[in-house]
Amino acid sequence: MLNIVLVEPEIPNNTGNIGRLCVGTESRLHLIHPFGFVISDKNLKRSGLDYWPHLDVTEYENVAEWKATVPDLSRVFLTSSQANKSYLEIDFQDGDWLVFGKESVGLSAEVLSQFENHLTIPMSPLIRSFNVANSVAFVVGEAKRQIALKK
Amino acid sequence: MLNIVLVEPEIPNNTGNIGRLCVGTESRLHLIHPFGFVISDKNLKRSGLDYWPHLDVTEYENVAEWKATVPDLSRVFLTSSQANKSYLEIDFQDGDWLVFGKESVGLSAEVLSQFENHLTIPMSPLIRSFNVANSVAFVVGEAKRQIALKK
Repeated sequence: MLNIVLVEPEIPNNTGNIGRLCVGTESRLHLIHPFGFVISDKNLKRSGLDYWPHLDVTEYENVAEWKATVPDLSRVFLTSSQANKSYLEIDFQDGDWLVFGKESVGLSAEVLSQFENHLTIPMSPLIRSFNVANSVAFVVGEAKRQIALKK
Repeated sequence: MLNIVLVEPEIPNNTGNIGRLCVGTESRLHLIHPFGFVISDKNLKRSGLDYWPHLDVTEYENVAEWKATVPDLSRVFLTSSQANKSYLEIDFQDGDWLVFGKESVGLSAEVLSQFENHLTIPMSPLIRSFNVANSVAFVVGEAKRQIALKK
């Protein structure tokens, strides 16, 4: 089971879609405050459709509170368009933590500096980033492909 | 270069995100009418941000008009939650056509019956489908991974 971590998500539609993606891929969702919306927002529930009650989701006040719950920090992977290593070069394992930043600016330098593993999703220079829910799909798809091969 | 085909897309936010995904992955987008929105809709342009002008996009009146432009129908792959074969079992090639149905009901039986290759994205029975933009990300990510390995 993979762990998806969203740091300070801003757009309820994206968090709703990622919640649906987590239910569909049997992943856990971890949401770190502050959010750009309230969790009961009708937009979020609409995006998550009827799946939100099935979601294994935990909320944290800040990055430090979440970080303290992670058993092995070497299995935390932060996504950043500034990273040099592609997600296709990572050797994923079941239980890994995949961390995504806020839509407007991604993960902060302060958060990135706290973890050793950074990854990027290769993309054309014509865009600055993929939509965050699509970024989660790219990385979770590859991680689940690798994990299935190891079984 | 991959070809992404959306048959009768309904939600402008999804088409906008898929447009951004196509620019970012250097894929062509093919949109088959009728749409659930007008292409100049501000929601679509907002979702596509400033990327839409960079998008290689073609519109078609119907499936038959698009189908007539495909040089090799054996390289067309239709996504359906009813399919038996996972997208991870497909041997993708550069230039392949990846076809996705409308958000509410997916591809019709009438369209599915016209092509031999169907694929599904494995998912928990707790959801009926992934968001269509996330489905595109799963399949394009895997197809591009395979194509890069062949180079």
